[in-house]
Amino acid sequence: MTPILHIGNKRLSTWSLRPWLALKKANIAFQENIIPLDQEDTRDTLLALSPAATVPVLETAGRNIWDSLAICEWAAEQVPSLWPEDPALRATARSITASMHSGFSALRNELGMDLKREKAAKDMSVACWRDIETIQALWAHVKTGEGDFLFGDWSIADAFFTPVATRFDTYQVPLSTDAAAYVETLLSDPVYKDWHTAALEETWDAPFH
Amino acid sequence: MTPILHIGNKRLSTWSLRPWLALKKANIAFQENIIPLDQEDTRDTLLALSPAATVPVLETAGRNIWDSLAICEWAAEQVPSLWPEDPALRATARSITASMHSGFSALRNELGMDLKREKAAKDMSVACWRDIETIQALWAHVKTGEGDFLFGDWSIADAFFTPVATRFDTYQVPLSTDAAAYVETLLSDPVYKDWHTAALEETWDAPFH
Repeated sequence: MTPILHIGNKRLSTWSLRPWLALKKANIAFQENIIPLDQEDTRDTLLALSPAATVPVLETAGRNIWDSLAICEWAAEQVPSLWPEDPALRATARSITASMHSGFSALRNELGMDLKREKAAKDMSVACWRDIETIQALWAHVKTGEGDFLFGDWSIADAFFTPVATRFDTYQVPLSTDAAAYVETLLSDPVYKDWHTAALEETWDAPFH
Repeated sequence: MTPILHIGNKRLSTWSLRPWLALKKANIAFQENIIPLDQEDTRDTLLALSPAATVPVLETAGRNIWDSLAICEWAAEQVPSLWPEDPALRATARSITASMHSGFSALRNELGMDLKREKAAKDMSVACWRDIETIQALWAHVKTGEGDFLFGDWSIADAFFTPVATRFDTYQVPLSTDAAAYVETLLSDPVYKDWHTAALEETWDAPFH
């Protein structure tokens, strides 16, 4: 069977965007099924896919894979170029990806991805400013200087920072020159732009905070 | 060079425990360096190791790997048996591991790992109870029935749930029979017991909440 990627609203779901980008970049064929978030039956729908009750879930013939990073690693087993080829660089790429996967809760809570939101600055906590500073430091730390992406060619690390780029853009966060250029690279990527266009066309009226 | 694993106090650092177990189980030689948490110079010490300023960090000849899951994946590239051999099971193992890596914030905030704390129940929020319920549902969902660990033989998934097992024990959380048996398996594992013994011998007087 063709795998089915179950995702949340494209307007809102940062977790869904990451493996969606990775599967597209890897040219792995998949169907997509959007599960509108924050609806009355959302949790029941998600529980039928995994006990974690979260999006994204990749439904494969074998079984369901219910986490964004696990889906990306599954894709990378088939298309290894989703990670840098050099083992040391690959370990670095996994480090920065995992930092985003588990961290930056202030940024995630305060600057929710909302692709329909009017671009405007917002008051932020000290913790949120520290997250923004740390993310820019991490980008500067890993950037090899070759190519526009973090590790030269596009990798899963770039998938994980694309939602961050939308937040920096939506909330007009002041950035270093290098960080701003990287954000521009991510947001002008044609694969991301397909997602963005679809997000703007969504009609669910989610009760989003 | 022999890699150096920089970790936090064994009493407190759940993130450090996970790759420590994986490296031990993989028989990968490493030195260990404990960085006491919550001290005045902790952040500066951590910043010298990576811009993320977190433990654990694995210092290798190539470069520093600064996240628990990234270190485990690095180890699994050398010792593949740290993940299940079957690709579908491996994807499931990565799913449940990643769920723990990014989620269950109520559990993590309310029931901090503290291996010197007297065992006693504690009031918990509804969100924390839901985390406890979800974790047990995830364990039941993935358990193959072969062997005592989640996927038969010990895997990185078990590393990620060992800190949870200590919390369930310390805070005397009521569990299903199967979940209680799995907690007992994790806490009676000889490699974990070495960590636990060292934790009890620590003398830092960290200002822990």
